[in-house]
Amino acid sequence: MSDSVYENYPPYLNPAQKEFLVQTVKDWATQNGLMVRPAPTFISKDSNPYGVLATNAPVTLFPSPFPKSSFEEAKALQTVYNKLYAAITCNKEWIGKIMEDLIDVDDFISNLWKVHITVQEEGYAQTLSLGLYRSDYMAHSPSGSTSPQLKQVEFNTISSSFGGLSSLVTSLHSELLNSPPGHPLAYPQHPLLTSGAVPENTAVETLSAGLATAHTAYGPSRSNPKLPTCILFVVQENERNIFDQLALSRQLTKVHKIPVFRLLSSEVLDHTSIPDSNPARPLIYHPPYFPSGTEFEVTTVYLRCFYTPTDYNSPRDWQARTHLERSASIKCPTVLNQLAGSKIIQQVLATTTGPDHLTSFLPDTPEPLISRLRATFAPQYDLSLDGQGRALALNPETASNHVLKPQREGGGNNIYKTAIPDFLRSIPENEWKRWILMELIHPPAAAKNVALRSDGEVLAGGVIGELGVYGTILWDQAGGEVLHNEQGGWLMRTKAEGVNEGGVATGFSSLDSIVLF
Amino acid sequence: MSDSVYENYPPYLNPAQKEFLVQTVKDWATQNGLMVRPAPTFISKDSNPYGVLATNAPVTLFPSPFPKSSFEEAKALQTVYNKLYAAITCNKEWIGKIMEDLIDVDDFISNLWKVHITVQEEGYAQTLSLGLYRSDYMAHSPSGSTSPQLKQVEFNTISSSFGGLSSLVTSLHSELLNSPPGHPLAYPQHPLLTSGAVPENTAVETLSAGLATAHTAYGPSRSNPKLPTCILFVVQENERNIFDQLALSRQLTKVHKIPVFRLLSSEVLDHTSIPDSNPARPLIYHPPYFPSGTEFEVTTVYLRCFYTPTDYNSPRDWQARTHLERSASIKCPTVLNQLAGSKIIQQVLATTTGPDHLTSFLPDTPEPLISRLRATFAPQYDLSLDGQGRALALNPETASNHVLKPQREGGGNNIYKTAIPDFLRSIPENEWKRWILMELIHPPAAAKNVALRSDGEVLAGGVIGELGVYGTILWDQAGGEVLHNEQGGWLMRTKAEGVNEGGVATGFSSLDSIVLF
Repeated sequence: MSDSVYENYPPYLNPAQKEFLVQTVKDWATQNGLMVRPAPTFISKDSNPYGVLATNAPVTLFPSPFPKSSFEEAKALQTVYNKLYAAITCNKEWIGKIMEDLIDVDDFISNLWKVHITVQEEGYAQTLSLGLYRSDYMAHSPSGSTSPQLKQVEFNTISSSFGGLSSLVTSLHSELLNSPPGHPLAYPQHPLLTSGAVPENTAVETLSAGLATAHTAYGPSRSNPKLPTCILFVVQENERNIFDQLALSRQLTKVHKIPVFRLLSSEVLDHTSIPDSNPARPLIYHPPYFPSGTEFEVTTVYLRCFYTPTDYNSPRDWQARTHLERSASIKCPTVLNQLAGSKIIQQVLATTTGPDHLTSFLPDTPEPLISRLRATFAPQYDLSLDGQGRALALNPETASNHVLKPQREGGGNNIYKTAIPDFLRSIPENEWKRWILMELIHPPAAAKNVALRSDGEVLAGGVIGELGVYGTILWDQAGGEVLHNEQGGWLMRTKAEGVNEGGVATGFSSLDSIVLF
Repeated sequence: MSDSVYENYPPYLNPAQKEFLVQTVKDWATQNGLMVRPAPTFISKDSNPYGVLATNAPVTLFPSPFPKSSFEEAKALQTVYNKLYAAITCNKEWIGKIMEDLIDVDDFISNLWKVHITVQEEGYAQTLSLGLYRSDYMAHSPSGSTSPQLKQVEFNTISSSFGGLSSLVTSLHSELLNSPPGHPLAYPQHPLLTSGAVPENTAVETLSAGLATAHTAYGPSRSNPKLPTCILFVVQENERNIFDQLALSRQLTKVHKIPVFRLLSSEVLDHTSIPDSNPARPLIYHPPYFPSGTEFEVTTVYLRCFYTPTDYNSPRDWQARTHLERSASIKCPTVLNQLAGSKIIQQVLATTTGPDHLTSFLPDTPEPLISRLRATFAPQYDLSLDGQGRALALNPETASNHVLKPQREGGGNNIYKTAIPDFLRSIPENEWKRWILMELIHPPAAAKNVALRSDGEVLAGGVIGELGVYGTILWDQAGGEVLHNEQGGWLMRTKAEGVNEGGVATGFSSLDSIVLF
């Protein structure tokens, strides 16, 4: 049944319809801030010396079908997932034991762990911790199955992005479904394309409310004399996805009336300080563009950087991360919470042999709910000598239903199927522990869409869609008490090898929305 | 007093402040659709083949000071101006007599007049006429004067632009005045830069409401069977200012729930028709990108083209204009209303000798109000044998306080001051009637601002500001009855020769907002 949904979708566009839809999407994106800064491969720095140009974010022309049952399940489980990752983060001994093994082989994990150890030795100045999470899923639809199953691809605990732009794509597709008003004709007729078919998307509201809750929970300034307070977005240089972040700043500024500043990760040590004389260790931001002496106390540090090794170019960057971590500001996330999001943790949770981690992390959660959460895990294995993983990975037949993923968050560079045995044999065996073997998730095979890339190319073809659901949680690391736990908003990301107008195969990864079936 | 206001304004920006303000404005513009398509001189078609790129509209960093009394007067007079131009448009004999003289020397005027004559011979199918006007002023501040006077630069009756973007600039400057929330520091301290100092700007609401009123006044479809109705924006090819227009479409679509379509002027004859069999002459739009046979009846044609000779490249373009004019759709504007906006009409109205045109066009308007309106005219003269103009223009001493303007709407190419006598002597005397002599308006000499151009250059320097006030009017050409007459929204446009970072003199023309003093 689900296959037939995808087979007739999206409806055919004749050239005039396609041109109209593309032009409409292009103009809508610019009018409404669904934008990115262009890649240097598209527009060189020379031809845009002041960096003023912007272009549409990559978007699909149509929303993608997604099973209603899976969507509802993902939403229902989000606050349970929030609680789970908060509980894991509170158990630093447990995290430490898992990380122990990796510390020799993974500099990045090792350095993150060192930040935690350094701050722990001094004592944490802030026990509140904020998570802005996104749990990513596919609608697992192996051939022959009758109904799709929700399977988790990964759980993001740091820099969970695209909430801002995703809300805009939802508005775009919703408006197209009602365009022109009273006579919806912008899309060709199709049973899935009805007014109101795209569910609401409160990603901006939810993520901003999470940050605002932390800001409020921080309470009054700890400086003497008291300072005005703010939220600090710590960001990467040359961020192309800035308008996604600004969607949250705008909501915080306009609706919550909270001052928000942006600071490059490379400038953290230049423009923030922690007064030696103040044992509370408030983080003070000195905006270099305001009158000399202007200071704000940072209640909440929101990291949109520091999630990948390339964000740390020198010891100074690690120093900056440590500096933030030891301050009294609420971190979104802390180093421990970032580590809790490693793929190795996901793998350990998914292991069906050994201790029942889920039940011990979620003692107050009813068993049926834990089972539903567990059902979203795809089978995952480490490659240790005594585990199942090694055998599955080295046998070409079993390997063909698996993917090998680097355990590092945001890693990329997956090895697929029958390439796995040869790959493993090509690297030293002591590096195998850097990898996780995961059973393949089979997204609907017949899914298709049409995408407008940021360079203006329009590509059509088979696609793989990933649904992310956002959640926010604020908890106290000291006693584990949860002060705020919310689910809200989602992201559909659609990737493909497509075929361009000239018939050349080329890729796209687009923001999308969904229609439920 | 007014001079001292300008002398200390805008406040000094140190390099860090300037960088911050520029970056904030740049990002805000992209996030909020304060955008234009880049000029081909900035980004070539080759490097942007699909036309996806956009850049900020040119904007000033600061709002510009403007005298409160002049602003209030301009707003108070707008509905009187609306009525005046409606009344002029109703008196086609009077317009015809003025145009008569120009028909031999001006092809453009001559062709417009012919469109009117052609349609008049057949009989107009629509007597309702819609005006979306903008009256442009300067705060006339000749040296030695104590208080500024409001002086009209021109009155626009066709394609009055920038309402959409102007509203956004107002929001931008207003937000900067309150940024960060609770601790306004984005601008350096200055007595003029206080929260709420920028007056509200309802240009988008007012202009859209004007169009929506016409749409409603059109009434039900005149086709058989009845068709769904729409508003049609007829536009230029490669319009860079499209986001200004889309601000109105969005309002009409979202708030008024009216279908709006855009059609290139060159495609009017391809995609619209007037059924021969229907004496009511409804204008039918056939969207080429909707299923074959889809038709909408156009209630209102909104021209964002056809105002300049270069919009008519062939007889087919004149045919398209005639086609629209003879249809039953309400035109914004009609040819007659466009002609009423010629500079020659402005000059005739301003002539102090001869008949009192204002009083005869505005019989029900109290004399004091007419006097206030008359006070906004700068002295203007034709160059006929028997008038004052010729003597003033040929004498270098008197010429030095005048400007010579081509009488054609949107003409440009003004001749200034002492260059006037030589210029006149260089052209055949029978062409002198193409020109209007106007006494110079003296904007505040000390006015300064800083502007961010669309290519990212930041320029600072002395500026000349023009305030435009928007008004809308719907009337019946048959009896002159006014069905709707509103004022709302404004535009500040700031022009200068500035100096770039390299010290090179270069120009800018920016969208701006105002703070009243």
